[in-house]
Amino acid sequence: MNRRIYLDHAATCFPKPAVVLDAMHAYSVRDEAAAGRGAYRASRNAGEIIARLRRELAAWTGAASDQEISLHTGGTSALNAALLGMLRPGDHVVTTAAEHNSVLRPLQHLVANQTITWTVVPVDPHGQVDAADVIAAITPQTRMVSIVHAANVNGTLQPVEEIGRRLHGQFAAADKPLLMSDAAQTFGHLPLSVSQAHLDVLAAPGHKGGAGPLGTGFLYVRREVQDRIRPTVFGGTGTRSESLEMPQEYPASFEAGNMNVPAYAGWLAGLRERRGDGSPELALEQSQAKLAELAAELYRGLESIHGVRVIGRPHDPVLPVASIAIDGLPAADAAMILDSEFGIEVRSGLHCAALIHQAIDSPPDGTVRISCGETTTTEELDCLFNALAELCR
Amino acid sequence: MNRRIYLDHAATCFPKPAVVLDAMHAYSVRDEAAAGRGAYRASRNAGEIIARLRRELAAWTGAASDQEISLHTGGTSALNAALLGMLRPGDHVVTTAAEHNSVLRPLQHLVANQTITWTVVPVDPHGQVDAADVIAAITPQTRMVSIVHAANVNGTLQPVEEIGRRLHGQFAAADKPLLMSDAAQTFGHLPLSVSQAHLDVLAAPGHKGGAGPLGTGFLYVRREVQDRIRPTVFGGTGTRSESLEMPQEYPASFEAGNMNVPAYAGWLAGLRERRGDGSPELALEQSQAKLAELAAELYRGLESIHGVRVIGRPHDPVLPVASIAIDGLPAADAAMILDSEFGIEVRSGLHCAALIHQAIDSPPDGTVRISCGETTTTEELDCLFNALAELCR
Repeated sequence: MNRRIYLDHAATCFPKPAVVLDAMHAYSVRDEAAAGRGAYRASRNAGEIIARLRRELAAWTGAASDQEISLHTGGTSALNAALLGMLRPGDHVVTTAAEHNSVLRPLQHLVANQTITWTVVPVDPHGQVDAADVIAAITPQTRMVSIVHAANVNGTLQPVEEIGRRLHGQFAAADKPLLMSDAAQTFGHLPLSVSQAHLDVLAAPGHKGGAGPLGTGFLYVRREVQDRIRPTVFGGTGTRSESLEMPQEYPASFEAGNMNVPAYAGWLAGLRERRGDGSPELALEQSQAKLAELAAELYRGLESIHGVRVIGRPHDPVLPVASIAIDGLPAADAAMILDSEFGIEVRSGLHCAALIHQAIDSPPDGTVRISCGETTTTEELDCLFNALAELCR
Repeated sequence: MNRRIYLDHAATCFPKPAVVLDAMHAYSVRDEAAAGRGAYRASRNAGEIIARLRRELAAWTGAASDQEISLHTGGTSALNAALLGMLRPGDHVVTTAAEHNSVLRPLQHLVANQTITWTVVPVDPHGQVDAADVIAAITPQTRMVSIVHAANVNGTLQPVEEIGRRLHGQFAAADKPLLMSDAAQTFGHLPLSVSQAHLDVLAAPGHKGGAGPLGTGFLYVRREVQDRIRPTVFGGTGTRSESLEMPQEYPASFEAGNMNVPAYAGWLAGLRERRGDGSPELALEQSQAKLAELAAELYRGLESIHGVRVIGRPHDPVLPVASIAIDGLPAADAAMILDSEFGIEVRSGLHCAALIHQAIDSPPDGTVRISCGETTTTEELDCLFNALAELCR
């Protein structure tokens, strides 16, 4: 087997930490049981894994309580739960052109049904939204402001904290639109505290920066706004089984059906290993520093190759994610050749983001996206640069 | 570690087949990539796993095409997709008191919102619905008939095939209400062919009888009725990323977000091992025979213990699932003692089924449910019978 040069971390990280896969496997072989549904020890232990993961995620997000975290099967299911569960007929939503389709498509569904109206705030050629533009788009009907933390196409960080501070400063608590962020590209990579950013809602998958396996995600909903969210998936919860209604209280109201306990056991092990004996804050600072170095190296390298055009270069790259176009070579062909000739795995196309490409001037067939993770090495980047130079020759 | 006597297979099977866990682990360690989102080989291989699993599930369900199968994260998410995606304002639904809350609660949500009306057909003291009663409940507004294949509380098989034949015989294709079945307790255990039963929709998890890991499930939607189903979860699909709308065509329209490819790789391996070189039909017949034997043994044993009351004994037990009450001992206490004193894992309570208990005369605190799988041995059942006899002394 050839070694893979995997540069598609923005889709899912690879390799998964060994501790994650080992914990999943060990749990499945030895301890597996359904959580919250049995009085026997293995089932209670499954419930305890869920409870510990909730506490761990509260620590990683700066949530005040583990009862502000519901567990989901991915970022998309968490975002859908938040958007479809919180928005009501007549609501207005402010969002940005930098969002992923996992935010844009649920919103568009509500817009098309004439349930809500929305304003999509444009982004600059770097893919960044201006906080002042977001605030200016708010109307008296605005129920929610939804801002991706970092664009998945080029890694541009959005001014979520600044928007949070402004909303917090300008509105009384009862009038303030809900602030939500999709942290799919940043959870586990960069610090983002829900309290410091005054976030009401935060959603992310576990399997990208979050040291978890596929099949995992979470939603944070601030306690004070939990009465505004209604379940969107209905089923068994292991509680109040005599009732035809879902339980009222979050997070139980959002966790219908058997939970994927082995995956959550793996995720928990991954998060615990990442922070070791220290705090999540410290782990996130270390990760941020490492990724900023990689980002600098990535952009420096790409910009030095004649024939490579960087698309939507961030003002200040903080994530090692970049979109490029190669002179005279369609994006899909470039990705295919990088894989087949050089063993380098990157993604081509529009990257499930419908609205950012015009602003950043992507070619019609999209971009070649290179996305690194914390395990990416300088040697791997050199391979990429050499391959691209050869492609451009 | 003591050996577990696991008799909670109706919640999730344990142990999972080694081939399932090994395939998941091997895939995760070596091959992991996002499916349908990259032009590199690993991503195409992920797509190929998905395609093969779809074909395999089509074979196990008797579907005419693999394009009638969408993949989900469990039975609950598949059932929600079907119910919330197919029912429209003004529709009437016929269902039964034997359903699990994963059917009852989504329906109750639509009823409470005054979107639909429903008729819940009662069941007899064995937990079985009469096919004639189901047919008689159909009105000109009836859009869907939703019948669980086997009740999860006591394993009673429902006359799904008979209902299917009657609907097929009585209605022209254009007027026929959709027939849906929740096969959570039977998929992989008992034969159920969508063509023979004239089913339009079938949903099941992979992790119970289906030889799959947690985090897996599927939905079958017959090609001719796919135009009646609308997506309920929205997000990236790796296709038509420039569009704010989900793709129109099923199954892509129901598969937003990153798919849990490692879990699906495990499920595929499990299904392949189950049928070996033979057909799914043969594997299901063998499983059916083995489970019928276990069911006979289970009921014979339980009925011979003085102080044990069998709740809702099926007319003809085909699944080794039974609910019991123990004289003078609350269900939760019994389950706790069986675990702590005898190492026997069973579940107590109402088992996420709100409406069946009155008909089968469950105690107010619910039942002790014993549910076996194909790996359950006679020795394990003897341990159970001895433990129950001791409890009743």
